[in-house]
Formats: sequence, structure tokens, C-alpha cells
Amino acid sequence: MEHTPYSAMHTPMLTELYEFSLADGYFSNGMENTVACFDLFFRRVPDNGGFAVMAGLEQVIAHLKNLHFTENDLEFLRTQGLSEAFLRYLRDFRFACDVWAIPEGTPIFPNEPIVKVRGPIVQAQMIETMLLLCINNQSLIATKANRLVRAARGTAVAEFGTRRAHGFDEAVFGARAAYIGGCVSTSGVIPARDFHIPTVQTMIHSWVQMFDSEYEAFCAYARRYPNRCSFVVDTYDTLRSGVPNAVRAFNDVLLPLGQRPHSVRIDSGDITYLSKRVRKMLDEAGFPDCEILASNALDEHLISDMVSQGAKVDCFLVGERLITSASAPLFGGVYKLCAVEKDGRIIPKINLSENVRKITIPSSKLVYRLFDMDSGKAIADVLTTDSEEIDDSKPYELFDPDFTWKRKEIENFVARPLLVKIFDRGTCVYDSPALPEIRDYCAEQVDTLWDEVKRFENPHKYYVDLSEKLWEIRKLLIEEYKGVRK
Amino acid sequence: MEHTPYSAMHTPMLTELYEFSLADGYFSNGMENTVACFDLFFRRVPDNGGFAVMAGLEQVIAHLKNLHFTENDLEFLRTQGLSEAFLRYLRDFRFACDVWAIPEGTPIFPNEPIVKVRGPIVQAQMIETMLLLCINNQSLIATKANRLVRAARGTAVAEFGTRRAHGFDEAVFGARAAYIGGCVSTSGVIPARDFHIPTVQTMIHSWVQMFDSEYEAFCAYARRYPNRCSFVVDTYDTLRSGVPNAVRAFNDVLLPLGQRPHSVRIDSGDITYLSKRVRKMLDEAGFPDCEILASNALDEHLISDMVSQGAKVDCFLVGERLITSASAPLFGGVYKLCAVEKDGRIIPKINLSENVRKITIPSSKLVYRLFDMDSGKAIADVLTTDSEEIDDSKPYELFDPDFTWKRKEIENFVARPLLVKIFDRGTCVYDSPALPEIRDYCAEQVDTLWDEVKRFENPHKYYVDLSEKLWEIRKLLIEEYKGVRK
Repeated sequence: MEHTPYSAMHTPMLTELYEFSLADGYFSNGMENTVACFDLFFRRVPDNGGFAVMAGLEQVIAHLKNLHFTENDLEFLRTQGLSEAFLRYLRDFRFACDVWAIPEGTPIFPNEPIVKVRGPIVQAQMIETMLLLCINNQSLIATKANRLVRAARGTAVAEFGTRRAHGFDEAVFGARAAYIGGCVSTSGVIPARDFHIPTVQTMIHSWVQMFDSEYEAFCAYARRYPNRCSFVVDTYDTLRSGVPNAVRAFNDVLLPLGQRPHSVRIDSGDITYLSKRVRKMLDEAGFPDCEILASNALDEHLISDMVSQGAKVDCFLVGERLITSASAPLFGGVYKLCAVEKDGRIIPKINLSENVRKITIPSSKLVYRLFDMDSGKAIADVLTTDSEEIDDSKPYELFDPDFTWKRKEIENFVARPLLVKIFDRGTCVYDSPALPEIRDYCAEQVDTLWDEVKRFENPHKYYVDLSEKLWEIRKLLIEEYKGVRK
Repeated sequence: MEHTPYSAMHTPMLTELYEFSLADGYFSNGMENTVACFDLFFRRVPDNGGFAVMAGLEQVIAHLKNLHFTENDLEFLRTQGLSEAFLRYLRDFRFACDVWAIPEGTPIFPNEPIVKVRGPIVQAQMIETMLLLCINNQSLIATKANRLVRAARGTAVAEFGTRRAHGFDEAVFGARAAYIGGCVSTSGVIPARDFHIPTVQTMIHSWVQMFDSEYEAFCAYARRYPNRCSFVVDTYDTLRSGVPNAVRAFNDVLLPLGQRPHSVRIDSGDITYLSKRVRKMLDEAGFPDCEILASNALDEHLISDMVSQGAKVDCFLVGERLITSASAPLFGGVYKLCAVEKDGRIIPKINLSENVRKITIPSSKLVYRLFDMDSGKAIADVLTTDSEEIDDSKPYELFDPDFTWKRKEIENFVARPLLVKIFDRGTCVYDSPALPEIRDYCAEQVDTLWDEVKRFENPHKYYVDLSEKLWEIRKLLIEEYKGVRK
């Protein structure tokens, strides 16, 4: 039984026109084989959090594997002023770049390369937009989902946002990212079909309104879905109408069928208060196994409050504020040139910009995460040049790249390189783990962060440091450009 | 020359599982032919604005026209516990609903139906998710785009957000919505191809960095694209390096080719200050026709300030804060049952909820917009029952549905019904206007709003009133449910 996966859509044209124009420009300028190196990184953690969660790599891979252009594509691009020689290049396109990435589910931090591309500038440039689109969106949602899951402290969180998603595939891939971040299920059909994410079943108010009474509505639903019976109980009045009618329907319809109720859902009012009252009513009626689901514009702060105040909720259904990351809807990933290879030499490149925080880190880099051997906790990430290796058998001195007098020597640590090879000269050499594995890996890796990094308010700023060598290269380039105008 | 339009994708499965479960529930309960009426409306204008802009209808129409299920679809749904009888119904699915909508580009207000569906409950329920997804997303972006365009007071605004979009099709349909709201162009390839939106050409920093000097980078670009030559001038230093090098390249390469420059782009620093200095430098160098483009996380407030301070910008390129509507990323459209037809009678339905602002307006409705005959300005919208007509040859008394003592008699007005028939028993009877027409219509209709409604801070609350009859129906239903528990 085959399905056409949603991700099988033809994506090579999903880009910005200037990517093609610039690629054509390099091509026409005789730079077809000039090799460049780009870093994809982000500058700020959404919601002023302490870390983000990497996601979207599988869609990047799908895009890069399918990078070819149809006659229709070329015909349209011809109307946009691209040269015939470049269109021929696109017709025979064969992806030839090396790509490294930090695996999905890994906690990631500002200013470190989370994807790294090395290859002909024509190609490395062209793929920018889709790399950013995929990584920006899914990392945003995975990061938000992980916040919600942390706020819920063990209570399940379900993704429920299709109708408020920013478009069709955000509904699909957003659900995927939410699952990576720790959500237990989704309301969406395609995420269930293509990614095998468990689905959440619910009733909505219109069902109740369609019947002459709430009781009749509940009974009709219980007869149709006796083995996953969930009622929404706030259509008229949760405590005086919804729950009493639910209990009657459980007794009158479900029990005679030999079934137990699944849940009731509260979608309005003071959920902390109502959930406690509903819990008591259900327990007293003999349904301690009937779960309570809560929804209604939830976010990590509301959930955190509810959990602190002892709300009796078994699953939080989170819609719009998860699928849009409403309080921080931007994951500002950028894709910047960091080196060019010329005549066998690697020349580091910098973008100075008029804003200090936009100055880039030159050179092709490695990312190491240093873990304390005793606690297993992550101490810092260190960016080095490609040729450096951190020897974790010896003490290592960390220093702050902005305030270089802040130094700290560490020992008894393990240095783990984070970037993994994904494409080798255009050939995919990486097998994406199954989604549940990515999800487990995410939980396990988040667990290596100190609580101070994980809290919502003023989280500790995790160190992302530079090796001495990398710091020197950057300093020299800044001095060079600030001294001499070219 | 045919392209597969992006919107031709198979969308019937892009929904939430419970839509199918509930539809099956109605079907299995013998309600296949029970007719229901739903309203799609929203509750709050994003950014606390005075109005929103309707968009997304064309994608709703495409979805509804293509509502059929493949064997693959049915096979998957079978695994989700749907009944064989309902799967047969889906196999032979023929859309049979009536649909009305407010045309795209129209200013819309909270609590009024912007889409209305009447048809078999099985079908009217099933289409909920995609209706919301399409309208929520595009109305959000069209509304934000119109704010940006108003802030720019005549200066062009271009959509530039593909890489920060929440997914592939937000990049595409978001660009469409931004164009409806008044943007002049897009950076995206597919919006240009499928919707014929003009594209914006630009250079990015990596181009400059790829060459040994900024001057060489500019010359190479000018040779390749002499007739649309645009340089990004802030890679190293806008005033001391970027603009002087641009002027040299214009003189050395473009003029000898008989071409004039298109523009320079400033992407960092104090754009108001820099643009004035750059304008002066370009004018003095003999390039008063060279435009200045500005980018860098712009929004309506930044643009408004720049315009007030006399920034010399010819086009604002707006990326992430437009395509995600970053300051207000939610358009909270909902889809609520408002009436059921039973034994030839129409029974209005209400959802009381535990939150007063979530109480719905029952009954199938009409929406009238009343325009003052002298000024041409919109005075108020009035919701009536289906059977009412507003006689604009006589004075009409408006009253506030919450504070009913607030009354106002108007005369010398025209009442225009806003809802247009889109589907008649499943057959599309509406031709979507061409996109430029929708865009012009939007500008023209926004012009019928008083400035007080259009301002950003504390806009005047536009009246959306109920007819006496509709108000009475609502009051009676509230009393009925608050009095008698069912």
C-alpha cells in the first residue's frame, strides 16, 4: 500500500529569484567550479530561551536529493532573464556539494553552524532559500514544543493546530517538529499518515449543538466510537450540564457495551478550577480512569501555572500558540559565506555589516560540544577551524569571544563533534533516524543541559566559544577591513 | 506552455482526523441529509488594528472543487476506524454545499460571517479545517501587508520573506496575500510564475564577498545584469566603501553599455540617516534615477518612523515581519454551527461557552455594509437574518448589540450585501477576479474606511451591529440555555 508522501512534491522552484540570478552570475563569470563554504546559523533563541532544538533536516535532504529541473521550470526561468548556458547547466544539474549538519533533535545555540555547505558557489548559493525555510520553520516549532513539554512536567502535550497553521505544509511539518520536541500526538491526518505520529481524537462543540440535547449528542457519539469515547463538556455549562450528561452517557451507553470512557475535554473557563471539580465528579461517578483533556489558547506559561496549581489535566491540547510559535514566530536562521577556495588555498570571508551583532565568524568550522565526565552535563560548545581537534585528555581553556578576559580552564570532559556528514560531493551519505528515535534523542540531549539553561526566565547563557585560532582569524579580518577600504 | 500550479496539489487529506470521525458519526447516525449552516468569522483584528483584509478564498475554491478521495486516501482512513459505509460515501463524494463569502480584498471586521456554508452536515463539517487554514493564513498576511503599505504612505513595499516563511506554501500564498494587501512585488519564484506577481531583483552580501574586492563584485554584476543593476552596499561600510564603489562601477561598466543603474540596497545601520547621505552621494555623482532600497527586519512602525523623518527610500523590502506577521502571527478565524434545518424548519443554534466573548451569534445571516451617500465612507456593518432586507430608502436605526442603549439613526445611505454566492449545491458559480483586480479592489475598499479606523494606535471601533430580529433570537437562546439545563 503506497501513499504519495507530502514531501514528494517538486520543490526546486521553491526559492527566491535572486538565488538563480546570482548563481547564473557566478556561472557566467567563469566561477562555475569555484568552491565556497557557507554556514547556516541563527542569532537569537526564540522567546529569550536558553537553547533551541534542531529540526527540519529530513526535508532539507529530500529537497537536495530531488534537485533537478523540468522543462517547465526552465521555460519559466528563461522568461526571467537567465542565460541559455546556465539553463543548460540546470537541465543537466547534478548536486555536487558536501553538506554537514547537526542531527535533528539536538539542542542548538546561537552563532554556531547548524548546517555547513561546501561546494561550487553556483550550487551552494542556489540552495540557500530552501535550507533556511526548512530549518527555520521546524526548529522554531520543535523549540516551542519542547518549552511546552517542559512546562507540563510529565503531563502529555498534543499538537492541535492545523487550522491556525501558516499554510498547508506547516500543518504537516510543524506537527513533525512538535513531535520531535516532545509532543505525544497530533490532530492532523497527513502527519499521522506520513510520519506515523499518533492521532488525538476529540469531539467539538458543533457535534453537541447538532442534537436536540447534550445528552443525546453524547449517547450518539458513544454508540459510534465506544472504544475511544471523548466528550467536549463545555458547550453549555461544564459542571452543571456537560459532566453530568457525560456520566449519564457513560453509564447508559458505554458500560452496557463493555467499554470504558476515554476522556472529557474542557475548552473554556478556568481550567485549573474546573479540572479539579471535574476530576472529583468523575471519580465519584466511578470513572477515575476517564482522562481530562484541556484546550483553549494554551501556552507554556499557562500550562506551567496550571501544573503548579494542581490542575487535574491528563493532556494539554495546544493549537495556535504552538503551530505558529505565537509569542516568538521567527527563527532567524541565516546562511552566510565563510570561506572561498582559490588556487588551492582556503580564504576565510567575513561580513562586517553596520550592526555589530551581524558580523559573521569567518572560516570553515567544526563544532565541538564538551560534556563534563562526572555529571554528563554539557559545559560549552567550541567552534574551531576545520583543521583543529580538541584533545579532551588534557585541560582546555575556554574564553569568551567578546570579553576575552573571561577565561575558564576545564578538565575531565569529553569533546563530541556535532556536525555530521550528510552529503558527500552530492551523494547522500546519511540515514535519517526514525522519528521516534529523533524524539527520544531530543529528550536525552535536552537532559544534558543544566536546569539553569532550561528555565524560561533569564536562562543562563550557554557558552559558545571560539578556539584561539578562529578568534585570531576573525580579529585579523575585522582589522583588515576596518583599516583598508577596498 | 503549461505549468503545474502549486495549488493543484491534492488537498482533501489536509485536515484533522476528527473532521472525518465526526462526519462519519453524523453519517452513521442517519444524519446524512440533515442540513446545517456554519459561519466562518474571527474575533479580534491582529495588532489591535481597526480592520482586517479578506484573502484566501481562491485557495478555498480550489480545495472545494477538488474534493474527492483516492483509493490511497480511503485505505489510510480505513486504518483510522472509519466505517465501510462512510468510506463508500467518500469514494463517491460529490460536494453539495452552498457557500457564500466576502470577496477577497474586502475590509472585514470581527464577528461577522466572512464565509458561510449551508449543506449536509457531513460535508459542511468535513471542510472546516481547510477553510480555516486558507482564510486564516492569507487574511493575516494581507492585513499585515496593508498596514505596511499604509505606513509607507506611497513608497513601494516589496515582499521578501520566503526564507522565514512558516513552510513552503506560506511562502507562495503569503506572497499572494501580500500582493492583495498592496505590496508591489515578491522575491519568490513560484508567486511570480503562478500568480504573475512582479519580482524584485537584488544582490546579497555573499556575492560581494566572493570577489577580491567590492568594486570587482559590483563590476561583474553590472556586466551580467546591466539592465537591472542593483547593488547591496553595506557589506563593509555603506558610505565609505559601498556607495563609492557602486558609483565607480556605474561609471566604469554601466554607462559605457548605455545603461542606467536600477538601485542600491541598504540592509543595516540607521537607514533613515544612511539613505539621506546615500541619496546625496548618488545625486551628486549624476545618478538621481538610481533608487534606494531598504531592508533589515522592517515593520510598519519602523517604516512609519522612517517616512516621518524623511528617509530617502524608494522601496521597503519587508521579509520576516510580513510573511509571519511577526507582531501578531494569529488570525483566529473559527467555524461555528449557527443553524440546523429540521422537518422544513430552520433552528438557530448557539454555543454558550464559559467565556462570554466566545458566545456565538445564532441563525443563518446576511452581512450588509452601509455607506454614507455623501462621503462614500462605510458607516457600519449590520448582520441580519437571511430573510431580512435593509431598506436604504428609509432611515435605519443602528444599535450596539452589547450596550443596547447606544443607538443612532442614519439616513442617506446605501446598503450593500457583502456575502457573494460561491458554490451553489456544490457547483462553483463564482469567477475569482484576476489578482491585480483584487489588489485594486482592496485599495479602493480600504479607501471607504475613515482614517480613524485605519490608524495603528487606538483605532476607532467600526460598528458591526445586529438587526433587532437577530438580537432577539440570540437573547432568547441565551435565556433558554441559561434557564433550562438539557
